[in-house]
Amino acid sequence: MGREDFWTTDPDEQLRVGDGFVLADQPTDAVYGFDGGKSDGQKALAEGATILADLQERLFAAGADGDRRRVLLVLQAMDTAGKGGIVSHVVGAVNPGGVRYAGFKKPTEEELKHDFLWRVEKETPAAGQLGVFDRSHYEDVLIGRVRNLAPAEEIERRYGAINDWERELAFDGTTIVKVMLHLGKDEQKARLLDRLERPEKHWKYNPGDVDERLLWDSYQDAYQLVFERTSTDYAPWFVVPADRKWYARLAVQHLLIDALERLDLEWPKADYDVEAEKARLEGS
Amino acid sequence: MGREDFWTTDPDEQLRVGDGFVLADQPTDAVYGFDGGKSDGQKALAEGATILADLQERLFAAGADGDRRRVLLVLQAMDTAGKGGIVSHVVGAVNPGGVRYAGFKKPTEEELKHDFLWRVEKETPAAGQLGVFDRSHYEDVLIGRVRNLAPAEEIERRYGAINDWERELAFDGTTIVKVMLHLGKDEQKARLLDRLERPEKHWKYNPGDVDERLLWDSYQDAYQLVFERTSTDYAPWFVVPADRKWYARLAVQHLLIDALERLDLEWPKADYDVEAEKARLEGS
Repeated sequence: MGREDFWTTDPDEQLRVGDGFVLADQPTDAVYGFDGGKSDGQKALAEGATILADLQERLFAAGADGDRRRVLLVLQAMDTAGKGGIVSHVVGAVNPGGVRYAGFKKPTEEELKHDFLWRVEKETPAAGQLGVFDRSHYEDVLIGRVRNLAPAEEIERRYGAINDWERELAFDGTTIVKVMLHLGKDEQKARLLDRLERPEKHWKYNPGDVDERLLWDSYQDAYQLVFERTSTDYAPWFVVPADRKWYARLAVQHLLIDALERLDLEWPKADYDVEAEKARLEGS
Repeated sequence: MGREDFWTTDPDEQLRVGDGFVLADQPTDAVYGFDGGKSDGQKALAEGATILADLQERLFAAGADGDRRRVLLVLQAMDTAGKGGIVSHVVGAVNPGGVRYAGFKKPTEEELKHDFLWRVEKETPAAGQLGVFDRSHYEDVLIGRVRNLAPAEEIERRYGAINDWERELAFDGTTIVKVMLHLGKDEQKARLLDRLERPEKHWKYNPGDVDERLLWDSYQDAYQLVFERTSTDYAPWFVVPADRKWYARLAVQHLLIDALERLDLEWPKADYDVEAEKARLEGS
């Protein structure tokens, strides 16, 4: 059985944030559209990796040929939800030469001297690239709101600023795919504990992770607001159940494959005389 | 049989550019140190991929813990020698979150207004990262010399400037691995022809490739000079036979694994009280 047999229905509708979306009602352990277990999921992921790599090469080729289109994957989540695994296992399947990865941490002094979009703007993908934001400008309305890192009016202003900015990116050829990995609170506890129990994982743990965890409900509320204010046709949000890492990876891979397939990418045509070049090469 | 069985001797000495090195004497189809064929090579590459990914995660972890070390792979070669395949099949094995890839093409107007090192400096890897230069500052003494893109004195100045710059990078914690993929002239013709014969490869072909090919000997001379002037202890050159793609990939993977193993990377120790954190987590 292959990938297509396991994906029995397109999960797009269940993953996409639509009108009346309520985060608190969303399960964290669903496997929308996928009729199989973990090992089936891993098989399907490996098969999808080849498809994704091929599509991305077509995007890259188009970019080299003057096509301005590119794709931007925005990843947001609570700690341990699996962003790193998505980057490694999903994005890792494509040629690094066509990927622009950017991880955003606590803003530096210099970044804070600029508008909050300044640092993300610099990291947007170029034509032909698959861009990945590991955290993003949404931190400025998530931790920014939860921890009052900016005045309330400024936080309010940002939702509109984000929509304006994303619309411009989209109009200029960027397919934006925004993903929130939706993790259960108990599952997070188990994963943090796992990090504490394994010395080779200690570096991944930070006491601040528990501080954030204690604000869980505030973060969920802040995400709910994000979805209400920044789910647009040109930059939709997808909420991906993340308790099962294998499913979250598959689902994000599916979203990327889907986004790239919709670009309907053809291999660029030669803009030179193929036969003449063969002759010239032969004589060289 | 595993990777270690196939690598019968360390190819380092045969790959490394030493005193009295003569590029014209180097075979392009050797498989130094590897006792096996293509399928053995592919098996060893897959095994090495896991090792490389693990080492790179350790480097990344160390970087997150304040260790300033990083690795920079510089790739240079004639067209079709397989730089793209190295990036995809060797670098592609590690987590994209820890990779900083930069491809350098013909300099832009803005880049030309600066010193030739300006654009590469901006793309150097940060602590914990594996940087990859797909072409590099060496273009400025390769095509730069062959096509007289700068005055002769300026080209001469650059070798010393490169050594000074690379020494600073090395002193600041960068392990520099410079690789020239050494391709045979006949093999290049076959690969260019292949691109012309397959429509899905047409975008990879550029009539300029034959123009460069017609200057083959001048390029080989320019490479010879590069090796004589910029092979240093702190930034050694390796000339990798590239007629067999599988071997070139294996060899570069070997060089990276070797470079990372010599860093002797340990998982960072917790800088917090593990038991206290477990208790705090339990109560959250």
